[in-house]
Amino acid sequence: MRVTAPPGLTWSAETVSDHLVSWNPGAATNSVVDFVERTVADHVPVEERVAVFDNDGTLWCEKPLPIQADFILRRLFEMAQADPTLRNRQPWKAAYEHDYAWLGGVIAEHYAGDDTNVRTLLGGVLTAHAGISVEEFEGLSESFLREARHPTLGRRYVDCAYAPMVELLGYLEANGFSNYIASGGGRDFMRPITTSMYGVPPERVIGSSVGLDFADGHLRTTSTPEFLNDGPVKPVRIWGRTGRRPIMAVGNSNGDIQMLEYAHAGPGPSLSMLVLHDDADREFDYVAGAEKALNEAQAKGWTVASIRSDWATVFD
Amino acid sequence: MRVTAPPGLTWSAETVSDHLVSWNPGAATNSVVDFVERTVADHVPVEERVAVFDNDGTLWCEKPLPIQADFILRRLFEMAQADPTLRNRQPWKAAYEHDYAWLGGVIAEHYAGDDTNVRTLLGGVLTAHAGISVEEFEGLSESFLREARHPTLGRRYVDCAYAPMVELLGYLEANGFSNYIASGGGRDFMRPITTSMYGVPPERVIGSSVGLDFADGHLRTTSTPEFLNDGPVKPVRIWGRTGRRPIMAVGNSNGDIQMLEYAHAGPGPSLSMLVLHDDADREFDYVAGAEKALNEAQAKGWTVASIRSDWATVFD
Repeated sequence: MRVTAPPGLTWSAETVSDHLVSWNPGAATNSVVDFVERTVADHVPVEERVAVFDNDGTLWCEKPLPIQADFILRRLFEMAQADPTLRNRQPWKAAYEHDYAWLGGVIAEHYAGDDTNVRTLLGGVLTAHAGISVEEFEGLSESFLREARHPTLGRRYVDCAYAPMVELLGYLEANGFSNYIASGGGRDFMRPITTSMYGVPPERVIGSSVGLDFADGHLRTTSTPEFLNDGPVKPVRIWGRTGRRPIMAVGNSNGDIQMLEYAHAGPGPSLSMLVLHDDADREFDYVAGAEKALNEAQAKGWTVASIRSDWATVFD
Repeated sequence: MRVTAPPGLTWSAETVSDHLVSWNPGAATNSVVDFVERTVADHVPVEERVAVFDNDGTLWCEKPLPIQADFILRRLFEMAQADPTLRNRQPWKAAYEHDYAWLGGVIAEHYAGDDTNVRTLLGGVLTAHAGISVEEFEGLSESFLREARHPTLGRRYVDCAYAPMVELLGYLEANGFSNYIASGGGRDFMRPITTSMYGVPPERVIGSSVGLDFADGHLRTTSTPEFLNDGPVKPVRIWGRTGRRPIMAVGNSNGDIQMLEYAHAGPGPSLSMLVLHDDADREFDYVAGAEKALNEAQAKGWTVASIRSDWATVFD
């Protein structure tokens, strides 16, 4: 790992092209390189080079449904297989019958302001993996992510990282940055694969969590929610974990706005970036859930990376 | 920093004596060295070499009152100076009148099962530094710790670290360990000085915290408690931060029992250690609040480091 350039020296174009090979020349790529070179040229202390990344839709694919939703639905299906009385109760009924219309309706109702079924869904979700050791949970998550396949892309979930983002993580690390994940997804769901997929070790993974019980020397999951790491909770948890304000933040949805604001409002150079999903051929094309974030990006001059225009390759 | 010995080779006695110069020869010192050498000899992966340390009474002095209590009482005094109406209300009254008997009584009542005045005290404590930016809080904490002096030892608080423990942190780091602080004290109170005092950076400091509010790009303190990082909460927060079970834990009181159990219950080599305060001449002599922990240590074979017997030097 190359850690720092000699003081005052910026990286050569060759060094950039070593890393960002899947990025097309253009404004987004330039803003990344300009920011990183300025950080080095300005001698920003290495310990302050903290970058935070959302995961779903930023580092890996989140359509047609978030990867963790597939993990949970499969578990609810198993529970309904084992216990027929669950088959008439939501959300087990929908999982058992593969009733994606009901699940999609819950999301639509949520956006329309009705959370009745959201609570029903959440109640099931929170029981799906409750009462097991954190090590057992890690094992289930890792097996799923290494073995299950994306429903439309056909590749294993562990191969659903965006190649340009993995390159970006490497480029930042080569320039002395510490990369953190700050995701709305489950902290302990992601941890078993973030080192191999992204080079981000478990202690740099921030995410949603359930409460844990300690007894007889061991930690077990509960069905009590602890943090939903989304929106304004992201900067709070980033500070809680790192004790620093990040100088770079990358997201793709409305839940990332505050994290991007947090990086943007710092005193020195910063980069706030959104990934725009506009490539139905190679990935997906959607702005639902990102409308406000895109407006903020325009108002505040944040960088927008278009999958169609800025990424030469989407998946390795 | 020396990170690892060549595989299979243990460290020489000279390497130990380079680091643990303030430790007397004896059972406690041997158990530390045996554990570290076994970790290296067994090729425990570097990323699993996680050690966790309580702070108050383990890394720095906690008598006659915890250092953070002095910080808060000075702030309550200032508040009562500025606002005379507070001078008749607890806990400002006690702080303004330097009424340590009232404060001591609250602790005694707590141990007797009556938390009426604990709630009164906590209500004041939580307002003492509420409504300021996390950066302002850091500045207040750092100035206090670098300038204020211990009431009986006469040295600045920032000089109240135990020399043998600072050496132990260095010895562990030289053997590839990552040291974390897991304290009942305030996470953001400790962070400004842990790098210079202990070589432990902010992202490795776990402690109690208040809720933070995010607005306009900035984080501000609230008066709502978030975590009291004590007892069974310690293993939960250690996992939350690191995603790993530590293989070494060091504490000094009943609030550290679960953290020490957590390290002890792991599958590989581990070390759980208690600091015993038995040296009224050089530090303090007390077991109040540590009785259960000392019983557990005896029952489970945890290491006990006696300040009187095992430490040649207490403070540098």
